[in-house]
Amino acid sequence: MEEMAVNLAVVGATGAVGEEFLRILESRKFPVKELRLLASRRSAGKKMQFCGVDYTVHELTKHSFQGIKIALFSAGASISREYVPYAIESGSVCVDNSSAFRMDDDVPLVVPEVNPQDIAKHHGVIANPNCSTIQMVVALKPIHDVARIKRIVVSTYQAVSGAGLKAIDELRKETASVLDGKEGFRRNLFPHQIAFNVLPQIPQSSAFLPNGYTSEEMKMMNETKKIMGDNNIRVTATTVRVPVIRSHSESVNVETEKKISAAEVKKLLSVAPGIRVVDDPANQLYPLATDAAGRDDVFVGRIREDESIEKGINLWIVSDNLRKGAALNAVQIAEMLL
Amino acid sequence: MEEMAVNLAVVGATGAVGEEFLRILESRKFPVKELRLLASRRSAGKKMQFCGVDYTVHELTKHSFQGIKIALFSAGASISREYVPYAIESGSVCVDNSSAFRMDDDVPLVVPEVNPQDIAKHHGVIANPNCSTIQMVVALKPIHDVARIKRIVVSTYQAVSGAGLKAIDELRKETASVLDGKEGFRRNLFPHQIAFNVLPQIPQSSAFLPNGYTSEEMKMMNETKKIMGDNNIRVTATTVRVPVIRSHSESVNVETEKKISAAEVKKLLSVAPGIRVVDDPANQLYPLATDAAGRDDVFVGRIREDESIEKGINLWIVSDNLRKGAALNAVQIAEMLL
Repeated sequence: MEEMAVNLAVVGATGAVGEEFLRILESRKFPVKELRLLASRRSAGKKMQFCGVDYTVHELTKHSFQGIKIALFSAGASISREYVPYAIESGSVCVDNSSAFRMDDDVPLVVPEVNPQDIAKHHGVIANPNCSTIQMVVALKPIHDVARIKRIVVSTYQAVSGAGLKAIDELRKETASVLDGKEGFRRNLFPHQIAFNVLPQIPQSSAFLPNGYTSEEMKMMNETKKIMGDNNIRVTATTVRVPVIRSHSESVNVETEKKISAAEVKKLLSVAPGIRVVDDPANQLYPLATDAAGRDDVFVGRIREDESIEKGINLWIVSDNLRKGAALNAVQIAEMLL
Repeated sequence: MEEMAVNLAVVGATGAVGEEFLRILESRKFPVKELRLLASRRSAGKKMQFCGVDYTVHELTKHSFQGIKIALFSAGASISREYVPYAIESGSVCVDNSSAFRMDDDVPLVVPEVNPQDIAKHHGVIANPNCSTIQMVVALKPIHDVARIKRIVVSTYQAVSGAGLKAIDELRKETASVLDGKEGFRRNLFPHQIAFNVLPQIPQSSAFLPNGYTSEEMKMMNETKKIMGDNNIRVTATTVRVPVIRSHSESVNVETEKKISAAEVKKLLSVAPGIRVVDDPANQLYPLATDAAGRDDVFVGRIREDESIEKGINLWIVSDNLRKGAALNAVQIAEMLL
């Protein structure tokens, strides 16, 4: 084990996903020789714990990657665009959680349960898909393999932690303010009240595209095809922020080429890697954001036939957006690189 | 005006919808001669204000309807099943907000903007549709008239007030408890945490059907066809409770027979009765639950073409579930009865 241990960098260590990286690397006993925590100048000097030891966060510079074998990036697309090239130049392999390179033809976009074979094609960077896409494709791949998915209609219920630690703070403070009946809460992040409300715009800061879709919706539509390796899958998405701290929920409708029953889907998913079926309506058991938080699996329930078409299935898919939706998936990719 | 004033009863006056009945009757200057407020024995003796005057709530009995011309029912299906027959016997016409008679062949199920003509067919009771169905059909009828809707895939984001005043109270208290970091909050209504969570089960108390759907989902699927007067429309629904106090939001995907552009839909809906289009992505304007609360319109936005099929449209539909979703729609029916 000691021999295969590698020098590892975490870029964006102090963010919501950065913290998860450390917890997941610990719990999976990832063989770390040297750990280098990197962040913006603002966060440099902070201390973070890993395996009981304090590590100091360093400022990210183009020289940060010397001797680093694997660099986990989660600091946004512009940081990745700027620093991934330096990391590659230094001989690191990057697993990038941002959208910067996801749709580049020569960059593999990988969910280990779905397309592990694509990792081998990398040229220094492997892209980690968008959180809401990851959990959906994990749940849909086994169905696609058996019944071939023609079309997906997805509506999401996404947690605020997808917008970072500040978003969690804003939701909590605004919620307290509404409960207290106070007026004039000052928002920094969300364009509208998120407490006791739902916002059909993700990310909250970015412009809508000319076709009326948000970039999050386009990610689900485009990344799904690339990860599944099938450009014939048609996807339409509506992505919505809900006042939930952690875990994204998704209402997913699929139309298949071959008829598949709800019972068959349940059976298939029950034995599929990374999935836990929670589907016991008689006991009011179905996947819940609060139950998925802090856990690794993609939870699937409410599996039922769509009676509006001949060959359709409805599913409810829930997963921790910071874990399988981000840090865990990236660490799984890193494990396959070893 | 005085001559057409009628004796009016409100059954379930002390509930979430009952209170809205009074506010809407007031604001629309409904010509009330005598107002009779009825509720369970538990609520009898309470006072409620109407047009500045205190009214005492009386216990609902089979003799409550003597001299009553119009009875507005919103006290649940079992109360309606028991007492609507007495009201009819007393010569009242009932507008029933419960699900008791909605799918009966000889009971009109009416949304005034969609199928006002059906009111004439009543035999003493007109059913008010389910809240989540009403707002959807108001928004879809103009599209159906022009482009013929073949299929609807809807996912809902429903406010807790749909489950009554106690549900609002439970959401507020549980939210405060979670914010305070307290353990062991005792729920009376919801089977799982609703604070900072989403529950794919509506209503929270009723059993799932053998096909895996909830009764709320079946209502959307069945009532839509009846109100639109078109059994060829195929509907599949996933109904979800979100931690919102008031107003339901809906992500609706429609497939049409005739191609219709997003621009055409916007134009159509802009001039349709009961609809307000809020669709200005450049300024981050789209319908929001918090904005719709206390207002009468059905708000529609995020109107865009579904690129996964040849002829499809995605919409985001929001409306106050207690007003257009319940009390307002019923009062509009009552107005047409006059």
